[in-house]
Amino acid sequence: MKKSTASSNSFPLRPAPCSPALSQRQFLTITYLGAQQLLAAERDQEKIAVEIKTFLSDSPLTDYHAALGQFLNYRLALEISDPTRILYLAVPVVTYETFFKREFAQISLERYQIKQIIYDPIEEVILQWIP
Amino acid sequence: MKKSTASSNSFPLRPAPCSPALSQRQFLTITYLGAQQLLAAERDQEKIAVEIKTFLSDSPLTDYHAALGQFLNYRLALEISDPTRILYLAVPVVTYETFFKREFAQISLERYQIKQIIYDPIEEVILQWIP
Repeated sequence: MKKSTASSNSFPLRPAPCSPALSQRQFLTITYLGAQQLLAAERDQEKIAVEIKTFLSDSPLTDYHAALGQFLNYRLALEISDPTRILYLAVPVVTYETFFKREFAQISLERYQIKQIIYDPIEEVILQWIP
Repeated sequence: MKKSTASSNSFPLRPAPCSPALSQRQFLTITYLGAQQLLAAERDQEKIAVEIKTFLSDSPLTDYHAALGQFLNYRLALEISDPTRILYLAVPVVTYETFFKREFAQISLERYQIKQIIYDPIEEVILQWIP
């Protein structure tokens, strides 16, 4: 992965070393959740967590089912352990354009209030934040 | 699968032939959702749908993430296409006893209002309805 600066469009996509901002309880909770693809970070002065998904299978819908359930359980765990941290779902731009712009996906994202980060996996940069 | 009677404790677990109660729109919606493990049925006078999960992987938590996301997307699709049909998640009794009774699983089930059917995969009968 490329080294990134602190600007909002070059948020580092690689997992950072365990952040001092993570409390022991939150760390344990996230470990319990099997959150290999979850990272904690700061964006401006907001504490965030990012669930990074690659959507590499043949079925983006199946991938989305799994990502949604994981996202909602992570968000629930964060509400308990670190309620000020905001969770985002990071999705590749191709998946965003070909799947997440469909009507049902949009309805689902809105219903479950999924905040998204759209990233370019080639350039390894964030293209868009969708709060 | 065994042949089942109409009592609430012997609800047939095998997929029934496409129900005449399913409207064309609902059928299309469910097909779009890739709902291979979803069946429609009547219980007493209530229209229900059942998402059957086996939880056979090494990680019941990963299975639950996927089941939860699928369940919530199915429920959302049913709200649009057939809002009187109630969706249940069918889980094997061993998974219910060893995973779903844990504190975090209980919190998640309650938060997302997941109605469950507990079934015995050996005897192929329903043991419990959790509305």
